Amino acid sequence: MTGKPLERQEMFTFESDYTEGCHEAILKRLAETNLVQVSGYGEDPFTRSAKEKIREACGCKTAQVTFVAGGTQTNQLVIDTMLQPYEGVVAAESGHVNVHEAGAIEFTGHKVMALPQHEGKMRADELKDFLATFYADGNHEHMVFPGMVYITHPTELGTLYTKAELEAISEVCHSYSIPLFLDGARLGYGLMSKGTDVTLPLIAELTDVFYIGGTKVGALIGEAVVFTKNNQPAHFVTRVKQHGALLAKGRLIGIQFETLFTDGLYFKIAGKAIELAERMKAALKEKGYRFYLETPTNQQFLIMENEKLEELGKKVGYSFWEKYDDTHTVIRFCTSWATTEENLQKLIELL
Amino acid sequence: MTGKPLERQEMFTFESDYTEGCHEAILKRLAETNLVQVSGYGEDPFTRSAKEKIREACGCKTAQVTFVAGGTQTNQLVIDTMLQPYEGVVAAESGHVNVHEAGAIEFTGHKVMALPQHEGKMRADELKDFLATFYADGNHEHMVFPGMVYITHPTELGTLYTKAELEAISEVCHSYSIPLFLDGARLGYGLMSKGTDVTLPLIAELTDVFYIGGTKVGALIGEAVVFTKNNQPAHFVTRVKQHGALLAKGRLIGIQFETLFTDGLYFKIAGKAIELAERMKAALKEKGYRFYLETPTNQQFLIMENEKLEELGKKVGYSFWEKYDDTHTVIRFCTSWATTEENLQKLIELL
Amino acid sequence: MTGKPLERQEMFTFESDYTEGCHEAILKRLAETNLVQVSGYGEDPFTRSAKEKIREACGCKTAQVTFVAGGTQTNQLVIDTMLQPYEGVVAAESGHVNVHEAGAIEFTGHKVMALPQHEGKMRADELKDFLATFYADGNHEHMVFPGMVYITHPTELGTLYTKAELEAISEVCHSYSIPLFLDGARLGYGLMSKGTDVTLPLIAELTDVFYIGGTKVGALIGEAVVFTKNNQPAHFVTRVKQHGALLAKGRLIGIQFETLFTDGLYFKIAGKAIELAERMKAALKEKGYRFYLETPTNQQFLIMENEKLEELGKKVGYSFWEKYDDTHTVIRFCTSWATTEENLQKLIELL
Amino acid sequence: MTGKPLERQEMFTFESDYTEGCHEAILKRLAETNLVQVSGYGEDPFTRSAKEKIREACGCKTAQVTFVAGGTQTNQLVIDTMLQPYEGVVAAESGHVNVHEAGAIEFTGHKVMALPQHEGKMRADELKDFLATFYADGNHEHMVFPGMVYITHPTELGTLYTKAELEAISEVCHSYSIPLFLDGARLGYGLMSKGTDVTLPLIAELTDVFYIGGTKVGALIGEAVVFTKNNQPAHFVTRVKQHGALLAKGRLIGIQFETLFTDGLYFKIAGKAIELAERMKAALKEKGYRFYLETPTNQQFLIMENEKLEELGKKVGYSFWEKYDDTHTVIRFCTSWATTEENLQKLIELL
Repeated sequence: MTGKPLERQEMFTFESDYTEGCHEAILKRLAETNLVQVSGYGEDPFTRSAKEKIREACGCKTAQVTFVAGGTQTNQLVIDTMLQPYEGVVAAESGHVNVHEAGAIEFTGHKVMALPQHEGKMRADELKDFLATFYADGNHEHMVFPGMVYITHPTELGTLYTKAELEAISEVCHSYSIPLFLDGARLGYGLMSKGTDVTLPLIAELTDVFYIGGTKVGALIGEAVVFTKNNQPAHFVTRVKQHGALLAKGRLIGIQFETLFTDGLYFKIAGKAIELAERMKAALKEKGYRFYLETPTNQQFLIMENEKLEELGKKVGYSFWEKYDDTHTVIRFCTSWATTEENLQKLIELL
Repeated sequence: MTGKPLERQEMFTFESDYTEGCHEAILKRLAETNLVQVSGYGEDPFTRSAKEKIREACGCKTAQVTFVAGGTQTNQLVIDTMLQPYEGVVAAESGHVNVHEAGAIEFTGHKVMALPQHEGKMRADELKDFLATFYADGNHEHMVFPGMVYITHPTELGTLYTKAELEAISEVCHSYSIPLFLDGARLGYGLMSKGTDVTLPLIAELTDVFYIGGTKVGALIGEAVVFTKNNQPAHFVTRVKQHGALLAKGRLIGIQFETLFTDGLYFKIAGKAIELAERMKAALKEKGYRFYLETPTNQQFLIMENEKLEELGKKVGYSFWEKYDDTHTVIRFCTSWATTEENLQKLIELL
Repeated sequence: MTGKPLERQEMFTFESDYTEGCHEAILKRLAETNLVQVSGYGEDPFTRSAKEKIREACGCKTAQVTFVAGGTQTNQLVIDTMLQPYEGVVAAESGHVNVHEAGAIEFTGHKVMALPQHEGKMRADELKDFLATFYADGNHEHMVFPGMVYITHPTELGTLYTKAELEAISEVCHSYSIPLFLDGARLGYGLMSKGTDVTLPLIAELTDVFYIGGTKVGALIGEAVVFTKNNQPAHFVTRVKQHGALLAKGRLIGIQFETLFTDGLYFKIAGKAIELAERMKAALKEKGYRFYLETPTNQQFLIMENEKLEELGKKVGYSFWEKYDDTHTVIRFCTSWATTEENLQKLIELL
Repeated sequence: MTGKPLERQEMFTFESDYTEGCHEAILKRLAETNLVQVSGYGEDPFTRSAKEKIREACGCKTAQVTFVAGGTQTNQLVIDTMLQPYEGVVAAESGHVNVHEAGAIEFTGHKVMALPQHEGKMRADELKDFLATFYADGNHEHMVFPGMVYITHPTELGTLYTKAELEAISEVCHSYSIPLFLDGARLGYGLMSKGTDVTLPLIAELTDVFYIGGTKVGALIGEAVVFTKNNQPAHFVTRVKQHGALLAKGRLIGIQFETLFTDGLYFKIAGKAIELAERMKAALKEKGYRFYLETPTNQQFLIMENEKLEELGKKVGYSFWEKYDDTHTVIRFCTSWATTEENLQKLIELL
C-alpha cells in the first residue's frame, strides 16, 4: 500500500509494517557470519539450520522449506508451480493475488477465480457451492478448472480465520482434491493475536502449502514457503530459478529466518506488535474514532473525516485504504515488530 | 455450449447455431475455385476480395481485415495483441472471455476484469465508475491496468445493445483512451434483429476493433477481425502466426467471406434465422412457456420443468444453460441460417 | 514459405503443396453431409468415424486422436501440453518449430533446444551426447531440462529418416524417458516415397505422439494428432480450447479425415504426387539442373542462376528458399496431390 | 555455478564471488539507518540518493535507475519489458540468458537467438550478418524478430570487450534500431581490469540499458538497472511488480548501492579483487598450470588433471566448469571483494 509520504525528517509513521529495517538480532547475526564462506543458492549451513527450525516450529518433520525474497513473488511461484496449466486459483475477491499484485498470477497463465469476501475472508460454504456448481456444469470443460484455494491469514483487512473456519475450508478443498494455500505475509501477527485458536502446527496440518512472512515481521527481506505434505513440485529449484527468484546469496534469508526461529524471536516480536495494536485500538475507541471493521491484528482501519485527516497527515504517516464517501476516507494504521511505545504515545496524543 | 447429444438419427435439434455445415452458395464457390492455384497464408485474390467487400459493408475504406478460424482464437489474438503486457481487459462477468474460453485470455498473460452483467450487457455508467475508481486509487500502480473493453453483440444471452448504449460505452472508452472491442460471433443475428438501431457502419465507427462471426452465420469456419482506426497491431501476421492462428490455406476463409458478403448473403440468411426465431418465440408464448429473459435474436432461453424437459429431450436437441432451481432448468433453443420451416413446425408441434 | 506471387491469371505454380483447395472426394462428402445436424466441438459421428479409421491405419487400437486446424498450432499444442513448464523441446536447428513458427513454442514458455541438422535430420548419436552432457553437468538444475524430442518426417528439406534412424532416436528418447514427437505435416509424401522402410504403424510404435498432415495432403485444413501410448495430456479438450484451437464445427476436419482415410485415399493421392516428383526430378537431372540436395519426397530444391531464375519466375511460381551465393539462389518446387500431368509437362518444357 | 561443497569448517574456497556476505561498510550503514522510518517500494531517501550517485558515476544525468534483487530476475525483467511480444533477444550461445537461467527468458515468451561465441563474446560482424540475413529472408514474417542484443561484460568466461568492440556492436544495433543490453553482473571487476579501455560512462553511452551487479561485488543482494536513453518501459513499477520483483523494503538495496557508490567504494573493492586475481594468475603460471583461456578479470579457468583435482578439492573449494577430456576437467577460481591475502597465500601454497 502506498503510504502518505513522510514529508519531514521529524515525522513518524504508522503507515505500514515495513517502514524500518530489521530486528537488531538479525543485524548482529549478519555481522557475525559475514565473512564465513559458504556455497550459494541456499546450499549453506545457515539456510539448512533455518529450515530445520521452521520444521520444528511447524511440528512437521517432513515439511519442505524454501526461502523467497517477497510476497508477490512467493504467491506467483507457489500458485504457478502447483497448478496445472489449465487450472486457476480460487481466492476471495479482496485477496492480494486478485487485487494488488499487478496481475502477477495471470502473467504466469492462471486465472484468479474470485469468490465474495466477508471482512476479507472466504466462506467454506460459498467455496463448496462454487466447486459443486463448476463440476455440475455440463460445459465445464470449456472453463478454467479450479485447481487451488488461496487464503490470507491475517487477511488484507487484518481479520483472522478461526480454527473451525480453517478446518471447514480445508475439508472442502480436500474433498475436491484441491490444495489449500495460506498466504502468511503477516502470519506472526495472526498467530500472536489475542484469543486466536490457530497455531502454526494447525496451519501445517490443514494446508498443503503456506508461507511465513519475514519482510513484515522483523526481517529485511524474505518469506519461508512451507510444503507440508511432501508435495513440493518436482525440480523446484529449477522452477524458482526460472521465475527469477533464486538468490545467489541464499544465506541472506537463511540467516534471518534462523535468527527469527531461534528462541521464539518471531513470536515475541509479533506479540509485542499485537500488544501495541491493542493499546492503540483501545485509545482510539476511547477517543470515539470510528472503525471500518474490528480487527484483532496489527492493522487497524479507521473512517476519518477528510478535513481532520488532512491535519493529521501533517504529523503522522498513515496508509490511504479507500474512499469511504464524499467526506470520509478509510485509512490504515499498522503496528509492527519495530513500533516503539514512544511513537504510540505520540500518536495517541495527536489523535 | 454442450448440447444434449443427438441420440437417434431421426432426431432434430435446436441446440445451437453450429449444427450444420455451411450455406450452399459457399459449397458451390469452394467447388468452383477448388483447383485455382493461389499463394498461401491469405495472400490470394479471394481473400483480398473478401476484405474489400467487408470494408464496403462497414462503410470504412481504411479498415484492416484479417480472417481467423474461430471465436476464442480471435478473442485471444485481438486482446493479447492490443493490450500492453501490464493491462487487462474489462468485460461483463458473463462475457465469453470470462467464462467459456478455458482461460485463453489469462493463458496469454492478461487478467479479465469482470463488471456486473445486466442481461448479458455491461453498463456505461458502471464502466465509468470502475475506471474512475481505478485511477483514483493511490495504489493503482500495484494493480492491473484496464487496457481494453470487451463487449459481445449479441451477448451470450442473446440480448443487444442499443445505439445509445454503444455510444455511451464508446465515449467512456475513448475518454480513457482505451480501445473498445466488440465480439460479434453472432453479429449477423444482431444486425438483422427487428427494431435494432445498430448497423455495421455504426459498429465500425464506435469500436476500435470488432469481429464478424462466420462460423455461426453460414460459414464452415471463420471470423473476420476488423480494425477500424488504422490501429492493427504492428507485425500482425507474425503475431497471428505466433498464436498458431495463421492458416496455410487462407483461401478457405477468404472464399467463404467473399461469398457471404456478395449480394448481402450474410444479412439475408441471418434475417431468415431471426424471422424463424420470432415465430418460435410467438408459438412458445402462446403455449404458455416461461422465458428466462426476453431476447430479440436467434437464441431463446426457456425455464423448463425438469420432468417435461426429460420428455422433450427424447425428441429434440436443446442446450442446457443452467440449473434454475431444484425442479427447473434453463435451456436454450437456437435458430440459424440453416433452420428449416419444417423443423420449426415439428418443434412447435412437440411443445 | 512465401512463394513468388502469381502475377498473371494464366500462370501456374509449383511453389508449394497448398496452392489448391482439396481433393474432390472431400468436397463431395462435405456437400452430402452438409445439412446433417450434429453436435459441435468434435462430438459428431464423422469425427468419431475418422478417429477410428486413423486408429486402424496406424495399427494402434488405443491411439487417442484429436483434429487441429494447422501445423504450427499443432506443434504449439502438443509441445506445450506434453512438456512440464521447466522443460524445453529438442529439435534439429532447421526444425520448423525452431525457425518458421514465429516463436510459437517460446510463446507458451518453452525453449527450443537446437541440435545440428544433417540434411534436415537429427542424429541419434548427437541427441544421446546432448542428453548425456546435460545430465552430467553439475549445474543442470540451472538449465532448461530437455523434455521432448521433435523431429519432422519428411523434414523441412524433404528428406526422410530410415527405419533404423527412427529406431535409434526412439531408443535414446526412451532411455531418457523423454517422449518423441514426429511432425508429419507432409507425412503422406514421406510414407509413399519410393524405397522408404517407414510405415504408419512403425511411426505409431516408435513415437509417443505424431501428427498426420491434412492441409498439405489433400484437405482444406486440418491435422490429426495421434497419441500412441495412452498418453494424451489430462483434460486435453480444455487445453485445446485454452490454446484457441477448438473448432465449434469440428465436423469440418472430421469429415475430411474420414474421407482421406477411406479406401486409402490419403496414400493414393500422396503416391501420385511422389510419382510426379520423381518424373520432375528425372527431367531436371536430364536437363543438367543442379540440386541443392537429393530428396525422395515431393519437395525438390534447385540451385539456380539468378538471371535464369528471373526469367523462369515470369512463367511459373516457385518458392525462394535461400540465397546460395551472390549469383545463385536455392529454390523449391513442390508437387502435391493436386499436381496435374499437364502442368508438369509445361514446367519441363519451360526449363 | 554449483561449487564443490565445503566439506569441513576449516576449509576455504575460491569457488565463486558470492561466498561471503557484504562489505563491512554496508553492514555498518544498514545498522545506522535501521530504525529510520521510510516508505516502502523504493520510495525512500536512501534509494533516491543511490540512484543519484549512480547517475553521477555513469555521467548520465537523465539515466533511469531501478534496483532489483538478482541477476536472472534483472535479465528476465529487462528483456521482457523492452521486447515486443513477437521479438527475441540475440545473445552469444554462451550467454547467461541462453544457458544458465533455466529458461527464464522463454518463460516470458521470448526466444533467445544464439550467435557463436568467441571466448564468451559476440562479434559485431557476425551480428550484422545475422540481422542482414534475417531481413533479407522473404519468409521473415514467419520468424522471430530480433528485438534486442544482449551481451555480458565481463562475459561468463571472464573476458572483456574492448571499447572498439563495444562501439562496433553498438553501431550495428543502432543501425537496426535494436537496443543493446549489457549484463554487468560482475561489472566492477571488468571496469577495474588492468588495461581495459571501457569505462562506466562509455557503457552508459554505447548501450541502451545495462545493469551494475551488486551481489557479486560487495552487496548482500541487488543489481542496479540503468536505462540510459530515457527509454525505461512505460509503467515500469507495475511491470516490476507483475514480475514479482518489487521489494517492499526497497531500502535494503538502496542503502547498499548508496554505500557502494560513495567515495568510489564499488571500484576500490573490485580493484582489490583484480589485484589478487593477477597475483593468483602469476603464481599459477609460474607453477606451470594450464589455463583454459586468458582472462583479465576475477574469474580464472584452469585445466586440471582429474587425479590432482580430487586431491585439491579436499583442501580448497573451486567451481566445476566443464569436462575437458577423459582425464581433465576445467575448473574456475574466483577472487572477489572479500578475498583475503591470507587465503590467496594458502591457495598458492597448496597448488
